[in-house]
This record gives sequence, structure tokens and C-alpha cells, in this order.
Amino acid sequence: MASKMSNVDVLVIGAGPAGLMAAFGLARAGVNVRIIDQRPVKVAAGQADGIQPRTIEVFQSYGLADRLLKEGNQMHMAAFYGPSDGGGIELIERVPDVTAPTARFPFEVTLHQGAIEAIFLDNMKEMNLEVDRPIIPTSIKLSEDEASLNDPESFPVQVELKHLDQNEGGGETEIVNAKYVLGADGAHSWVRKTLGIAMEGEHTNYVWGVIDMIPDTDFPDIRNKSAVHSNNGSCMIIPREGDLVRVYIQLGSESIDATNGRVDKANLGPEKLLAVAQKSFHPFTFKTPEKFDWWTIYVIGQRVASKFSIKDRVFIAGDACHTHSPKAGQGMNASMNDSYNLVWKLSHVLKGWASQSLLSTYETERRLYATQLINFDKKFAKLFSGKPRSELHIDGVSHEEFLMAFQTFGKFTSGTGVHYEKSDIVDTRHQSLAPELIIGERVPPETLVRAADGRPYNIQDLVPSDTRFKVLVFTGDTSDSSQLARVEQLADGIEGSSSFLTKAASKSMFDFIAISSTDKKRIVYNAIPALFRSHWSKVFIDDVDLTGTQGGRLYGSYGIGASGAVVVVRPDGYVGTVTPLDNLADLNAYFSRFCVQV
Amino acid sequence: MASKMSNVDVLVIGAGPAGLMAAFGLARAGVNVRIIDQRPVKVAAGQADGIQPRTIEVFQSYGLADRLLKEGNQMHMAAFYGPSDGGGIELIERVPDVTAPTARFPFEVTLHQGAIEAIFLDNMKEMNLEVDRPIIPTSIKLSEDEASLNDPESFPVQVELKHLDQNEGGGETEIVNAKYVLGADGAHSWVRKTLGIAMEGEHTNYVWGVIDMIPDTDFPDIRNKSAVHSNNGSCMIIPREGDLVRVYIQLGSESIDATNGRVDKANLGPEKLLAVAQKSFHPFTFKTPEKFDWWTIYVIGQRVASKFSIKDRVFIAGDACHTHSPKAGQGMNASMNDSYNLVWKLSHVLKGWASQSLLSTYETERRLYATQLINFDKKFAKLFSGKPRSELHIDGVSHEEFLMAFQTFGKFTSGTGVHYEKSDIVDTRHQSLAPELIIGERVPPETLVRAADGRPYNIQDLVPSDTRFKVLVFTGDTSDSSQLARVEQLADGIEGSSSFLTKAASKSMFDFIAISSTDKKRIVYNAIPALFRSHWSKVFIDDVDLTGTQGGRLYGSYGIGASGAVVVVRPDGYVGTVTPLDNLADLNAYFSRFCVQV
Repeated sequence: MASKMSNVDVLVIGAGPAGLMAAFGLARAGVNVRIIDQRPVKVAAGQADGIQPRTIEVFQSYGLADRLLKEGNQMHMAAFYGPSDGGGIELIERVPDVTAPTARFPFEVTLHQGAIEAIFLDNMKEMNLEVDRPIIPTSIKLSEDEASLNDPESFPVQVELKHLDQNEGGGETEIVNAKYVLGADGAHSWVRKTLGIAMEGEHTNYVWGVIDMIPDTDFPDIRNKSAVHSNNGSCMIIPREGDLVRVYIQLGSESIDATNGRVDKANLGPEKLLAVAQKSFHPFTFKTPEKFDWWTIYVIGQRVASKFSIKDRVFIAGDACHTHSPKAGQGMNASMNDSYNLVWKLSHVLKGWASQSLLSTYETERRLYATQLINFDKKFAKLFSGKPRSELHIDGVSHEEFLMAFQTFGKFTSGTGVHYEKSDIVDTRHQSLAPELIIGERVPPETLVRAADGRPYNIQDLVPSDTRFKVLVFTGDTSDSSQLARVEQLADGIEGSSSFLTKAASKSMFDFIAISSTDKKRIVYNAIPALFRSHWSKVFIDDVDLTGTQGGRLYGSYGIGASGAVVVVRPDGYVGTVTPLDNLADLNAYFSRFCVQV
Repeated sequence: MASKMSNVDVLVIGAGPAGLMAAFGLARAGVNVRIIDQRPVKVAAGQADGIQPRTIEVFQSYGLADRLLKEGNQMHMAAFYGPSDGGGIELIERVPDVTAPTARFPFEVTLHQGAIEAIFLDNMKEMNLEVDRPIIPTSIKLSEDEASLNDPESFPVQVELKHLDQNEGGGETEIVNAKYVLGADGAHSWVRKTLGIAMEGEHTNYVWGVIDMIPDTDFPDIRNKSAVHSNNGSCMIIPREGDLVRVYIQLGSESIDATNGRVDKANLGPEKLLAVAQKSFHPFTFKTPEKFDWWTIYVIGQRVASKFSIKDRVFIAGDACHTHSPKAGQGMNASMNDSYNLVWKLSHVLKGWASQSLLSTYETERRLYATQLINFDKKFAKLFSGKPRSELHIDGVSHEEFLMAFQTFGKFTSGTGVHYEKSDIVDTRHQSLAPELIIGERVPPETLVRAADGRPYNIQDLVPSDTRFKVLVFTGDTSDSSQLARVEQLADGIEGSSSFLTKAASKSMFDFIAISSTDKKRIVYNAIPALFRSHWSKVFIDDVDLTGTQGGRLYGSYGIGASGAVVVVRPDGYVGTVTPLDNLADLNAYFSRFCVQV
């Protein structure tokens, strides 16, 4: 018998990057959340460590990027080495590591997983939320009662937990009744298996070893991301925080035990992995370090879960949903962005702002992304694991082929190209009003200038992850009285009795911002209708800043014309829809699809 | 009889901006320092509040700028209002608030003095240094014994202190023996008066009132620095942190009591000051706020102390040295930069790195600056206090005249134009090697790229306030073997027996950084001589960064040619000298003038 029973709005199982992003984001949104993990302490070293540009933007949207950038290493440059005539390797080319043109942070950050998790843990602690550990779930039951499942106030998921630590109530069990459960419990997800969700796809015969160390080497690109294709095998260098470096080393498929498809780690150690790398790097030398910080060996699996949710009451996220090779540095990013996508939707439903139907967009948006990720990974892993092209291997991989793949996939791997398809929350009908601001993609960074004081801002900082929909009113030139009249008419309409704002369960789910195309010499910020300037800081202009070095390209780069537009940005920073200033009906229609109306 | 006697290397009297900058900087340098103040608690509101661009750079050099920028308001734009035909005022023009072309932070920060002091206090606390208060000095004696004065280990200054707080040992006196004393005790400096240092200059008959409030107004430039010249008087708006605004209001000279030259505050209050402003701002309205945050009235004095030091053992800094009008926002900046100039010199002498003669440059450098400040202030205050030019006042001040002064003085008021004359630590003989990198001025910001990993950096962040001289070796193109040979020869010379490095009392007073003109595709960072790359992060290149948007203009903007140069940057970020790569003798000569040699 369980000694204790409790209720919680959201129970998160697993405190890796996916689980922590969920727990942090929900707590920040004011949601009642509990997070458990089976490990007695947090990860200290090793594991995933690459943060992509879009993920940095997400950290920034929560005010967490400063710490990430302070603690992490930045990879700006990628170097490619190939076979030289002399028998070893030589530098072929150095290129930008990130090729996504709109990346606000045009680099990858590397930092060990424990340090990244600590950013969440420390910020959670300030909100009085800590990980309950070590605890494992032992059973999970989802009500089959439709009335209960459809009642936003019900607790239809019952999870039994077992405390592992013998010293503090160890061995005890308890029952948690949850409105929602998130399984963020990794590649071997107990939640996924228990719910019978299948993984689709298969393992490959690509085997890679990984060592983390402070290198003693004469290799001149040891602080760049370096892809080395040698006739003795492939390696990849990922520089890390401090003086650490991670080396990925390709191993032959003979390392796989044919009987179970796994690698026998007992027969391999970091010294053996380094010895393989040393051959690939010739004529450059790597001395054996005093210690290895971490090491592992893995066979690449490329699989996606068949479902990401059971009845939108139990969800899975992160490695529980998708496994793939780590070399494109996607793992932790895909995981955290799964949760990031789910957090605001759960928050809106739990606050009574949105109907439960909103939650179905989690699977449609993130499973499509995961499928694209696996498809990308198949192509990339094949190229990376292939032999370099040479007279001996005329069907090998040429540098040009590899580089083209590297750069073609750059927008995708950076995360800035993630595109959510048309849905209840992605309405593309007026895309032509802002042809370069893609509905379903994140708001690309641009500088604008605050009207009242001329201070430059990045538009991404106007759409933080604060659970609100941002209604950006691109007013056009408000020094033109007829244009201003259109803006005033819009404001009147939104304040009218039948508008989305008036009908919304809560006005606090919206944040209005005005963006005028009037220049800084002529703007009168307090001539903007009061609805669109709840504070003097809410009015912006599309003009160059006072130094003349940035800004003034917002309307142009988004393709917004002189008649303006209303841009709705979802709480996760993705463009939800665009409507004309004088078509309040379509704006109302957008919100009516998922908002609870009163 | 004093109950207690103690020794300290530096005693700082006064915990305003000048005293706190000194105590913080000395503690950061590892110097034994004590700071006292007569006030029982720190300043909470009001007082000085403007931080100029160069001062932000100084904060950045200590790692304090992030907090300053997070907490403070930024002034980017200045607006000018003049008489309108209708009888009130109208907008004449908006211009950049900061016109200094090389300012790294092209704006002013406004934040109340208490918050700025808190940045120092909190950082001092982390170093276990707190302000002893409330304590006043009651006597100060400086030894007249030449041997003692010339002995760097002696404690020739004896100060008697009195504890004011009755509850904690209140009323007790103590004796402090100090190697050095800094009087940072304000415009009415006890230290200055006790040592008999005269103030030169006089009071004016310009009288100004100041009120801090959250305004309720329709004035559209309330968040810009606004200079208002009306026929009803002059006002200035300084927007502040949060929604606060400071209003400076010109008062008639009739407010001065002719018998003592002072203003009787009893007859004036913030309501009366606001009433004066309301007339000037017509037709814009200012409602009377619920409360005034702070207010004061002052008569402008424009005076400089005749000496800044007694025998380089007792110094004065800040308002103790100079008083002037507050409207150009210089006060706190001049004060903190006095201390900033002194801190590294005292540190070097106390560490045994430099001879005491170094200390005399404090007065020569800072008194010249103070004199320039007063001269500027005389011109500016006169323009600001003058009537607007009109048919009635044909000798009044025209907008063009005022704007020209505003912009002409921009480099000076920003602090980026501060220029230290030739001295033991400013050697201009090889200025022609870097004609645009002015010896005696601070290193202007420019982007360079780190060779090993392509990460862009601002050169100012390579010369932090860490008490070290930075030896920047502009190597030229190190992919050219003959140029590399010159660099190797320089390294050999500096490691030779007669060089400044070998003879220096401590090698840790130098930090070597290499800056190659080789591009990022070809640079081999580990080909640079080991002396100039104590770590992989010490080699930089002058190339555009990986995004192609910044960098690559360093040699060009400083005017450094293909044959390179050695640039010595003082610990305060000012260029000390420039020498050719192959003239080690002049480099040695520079350091031999003030370094202790072994």
C-alpha cells in the first residue's frame, strides 16, 4: 500500500535536459509542477554538450542566455581535414560553423550537460522547485473515462512512485494523481515502454567512440570544430568549455557484437580510442593525457516514437521520442525544444485560457520535426562515416560533397529553420502581407528602435517566453493621419464587444506592441492609441539607431508594406498568423480556434 | 587616548563614488585597504546619477558593466526645444545624445547614486571588504622625515578616527597608521581643508533646482535628454531608471542670499520648482506627482584644488578636487576616474613593482583633466543658463550655438577624449607607427578575431583592469617567414638578460598578446613564439569574423603598417607607448623609467 497520496497539475518524470526545460518553463509560467528523477545526484560530466543557435535564442527568451554564454565555449569556425599526398592529413578548408543566415547567435555553444542542467536547477530553486530524487515510477494508469479526460480540472493520470534512497523514507511508495504527465526519461523511457509506444526505425552499424580530455597536441585546429577524414578513419573534434576537447572517433563495425547489436565496452577503453585517433591525425600528434574526463562508445540508432502522447494527458519528450547520432549536435536541442513547445500549451490549458485541443499540436509539430531530424541524420551520418574519396575509393565521400551537406543542412541543424505546418495555431492565409516573415517559424532577429527614447532593441527581446501571445501591430507611418486613423479603428475594434480580447478568458494572455514606420525625428510615441502603449516602452519604430549602424530594416526584411499588418507571435516565439490592420475578423478567428471564450 | 592602533596600506576616507571606486579597485588588485565614511548608511536616492560612455568602459573592464546596464536607464537621444511662435515651446531637433565616434557604449546610463555605489559595495563584500561607518577622521599627520617618506614600506601617515555610533563602541577613537591616505570626502573635504589645500575658482550666480519624480505629462520627449530653452526659463529633462525623471530647473539669481552666496532652501520646495518648470514647458503639461523622490537646489561653483596630493602620500580625489555644474553629467564620472587613475599606480608601488615616482603622475594627469573640465563647464553652463535668442534678446543663445557646443564637447564629455600628456608613463616618440592609436588616450574599441577558434572579441576586453601592463604585439603577417622571424627575434630579445621582462621585480605585471594580420583561413596560431601565446587564447588576428559583419579593421583604424608594432597598454587601458618590433631598447627604456628592477 502506498503511504501517501497527492495531486499535482503536471508530473515530469526525468530530470535531463527535456525534463528540466519542462519543469523550469512550467514553474516560470506559474504552473503547479513536480519533477522526479531516478538518479541520486545530477549529471557531473560528459553526455550531450552542444547548444545550437535557436536553443540559445530560447535560453535568451527566458533570460538564461547570459549565463550559458559566460560558462560555455563558442564554436564559430569549422575546419575540414582530408588525406594529404604525404600519407597523413592536411587542412582543406575553414568555414563558418554556423551557416544559418538569420541566427542571432551565429555559433554553437559547448558546455557539459551537468552545467546546462545546473542553469535550470538554479533558476528552479529560486522558484522553490527542486528535483525529487532518487525516485522511480512503478506504475502509471490513465483513466478511460471520457468525461474525466475531457474535464480540464480532473486528475486522470495516476502514477505510483517508489523512493529509492534508503536513508530518507527509502523504499516507500506513494501515489500521485496528475492532470498531465510528461515522460522525459530518456532513450530507454519507462513511460514510453509502459504505455506501449513503439519506436520506429532501426540501429545502424556505425560505431563511434567518444573521449573528453584536455589535449596536448600540435593540431592547429584543436579549438575549432574539426572534421577529419583520413584513410585511417574519421574523427571529429568538438572544443569544449575551459581547455577541454571532445573527440569523436569512428570505429569499425567489427566492434559490434553480432548477437545483440551492442558494443562490448569492456574490451575498449579511452586509451584504445585515443590510439585510433592518433592514427587518423598523423602527422599531428596527441599525447596521452594524464586523465580522461569522460568516455563512451555507442552504435548509432535512428528511431522515432510512433506517438508522442496518449490522449493528450501523458506525453513523452526528448530522447524518449527520438534517438540519432550525436555528431550534428542535435540531441539536447531537440529534447529541450520538445518541452519548450509543450510548456506554453500546457500552461494555457491549465490556466483556463485555451481548450485542451491545443495540446494535440504538440505531437503534430514535434513529431514532424523529429522525422525530419532522423532523415537528416541518416544522410549526415552516412557521409560522415564514409571513406574519403580517393583513387582507391572512387565511390568514397568527397570534401565538396561533405561540405555541401554541412552547409545545406545548416539552417536545419541550427534550429532556426524549424517550421511548423498549418494548424489551429499556424494560420498562413495572409502570409503575403509579410512574405519574408514565415508563419510557423520563429521570429527572426532584427533591430528596431524604441520610440520614446531611441534605444535599440532586438525584436526577439520583445517576444520573451512569458506565456503571453504578442500582438505586434505594424502600424505603418503613424505621422500620416489616414494611416493613424486605421490604427485607431483597429484599436477600437479590439476593444469592442465581439473581439478576441473582450471574449478572452483572461486579458493577461496578450501583450500589445506597436511598431511604427515613422522615423525617430518625427515620431510622437504618445499619439499611438492607448491600447497599443500600455507603457511608454511599448512603442517602437523601424528606423536606424542613433549611431546609424543598426535598425531600419524591419519592415523591409519581413516584407511588410506601408499599410502595415498585425503579427501574432505565439508564446514560444513562433509566428502564429499575420492579418491586415482592417481585418479584425480573421484575427478573431485565429484566437477563437483554441481560446476559451467567456 | 585612542584605545586602538592599527596599520593599513591604504586608508580611504569617504565612501561616495570616488572612495568606493578606489577601495574596490585596490581590493581587486589585492591591496590591503580600509574605507571609512561618516554616514551611518549608504545613499538611497538622489545625488549624481549620470554615467558617461568612458565610465561604462571602465565598469566593463572590471566586469561590472553588465549589472550597470541591467539596472540603469540608457539615454540615446537628445531633444532640443525652443520658443514657438505660439508663445510656448516646440521641438527643434532630436540628435544623438552621445556624439563621441569611438564610444563603445554610445549612450549615457542614468541610475541613482545609491544603486551605483551598491555595485561596488556588493563586489567589495565578495572580497570581504566593507565600509566602516559611521566614522570621522579627527586628525591627520604626515611624517616630515624624508627617509620615512621615501621608504615604500613605511607608514608615514597617522590618522585619528572617531566612531560616531553610540551603540557599537560609539565615541571611541583609534589611530590608523597608513602607507597612503585618500581623501574622497566630497566638496567640503575635511582632508583637503585639514591639509590646507586651496580651491581655486569661484561660485557663479547660476542657480538650479532639481526634482526627481515619476512624471504625469504629455511631453513627448520625456524619455529623452531634453534641453528646453523657453522665454520663461531653461529646463533639462534627464530620464532615469524605471519611470523616474530628473528635471533641472533654472532659477533667477534673486534666489541667492547676497550675504553668504547660498540659496535658502527653506523658502523653496519641489512644488515651487515644479511650478517654474510648468511655465517653461507650456503648452505641455506636468501634473503634480503624488510624491517627489528627491530634490535639491544649488549654486554652481567652478573650482579646482590647487594640489591633488601632499608628498604623494596623501591624495584627494573626486568632489574634493573639483566642483562644477551637474548638467553635463560629469560629476560622478570625473570622481570615479580620478580614483581609477590612482588605483593601479598605488597597487604597483605597494606590490614593489614600481617606484614611488609613479605616483606623481596622478596629479599631473588628473589635475589637467579637472582644469579642462572646469573650462568646459564654464562655457557650457553659460550657454545653458542664457536666454534663448529672439528679437527681444538678440544676444541670447541660439539653438545652433548650443547644439554646436553640445556636439563639439561630445568627445570630452563622453570621457573617450580624455588625453594624458607626455610623462614617464606616456611616451609618444613612436606615435607615427600607429598614428590613429593616440598615445595617452584609452584604447578605442575595435573587433578582432581569436586565431584558434575564430571567436570575435572587442580589443577592450583584452586589456581588462587586472593591474597588468598589456604588451600587444602587432606581429604583421606571420604567414610571411621573414616577418615571423622578426617576431621571433623580438621574443628572444624580451627573454634575454637585459630586457624589461627579465629585470622586472615581477613577471606577473605583464600580459603578452599577439595580434597577427594573417587571415583566419591561413593563420597557424601555434606558430607564434611561445612567449606571446602563454595560452591558446592569447593569439588574435585582424580579420572579419565568420559572419563577415565585424572585424578586419584593427591595423587600419589604428594606422599600424605591415611591419607591425608593439603597443603597451597601461593597467587603466590607456596607451602608454608604441615601439617598433625591432627596437627593444625603447621598449626597455619605457619600463625602466618607473619599474623596480632586480
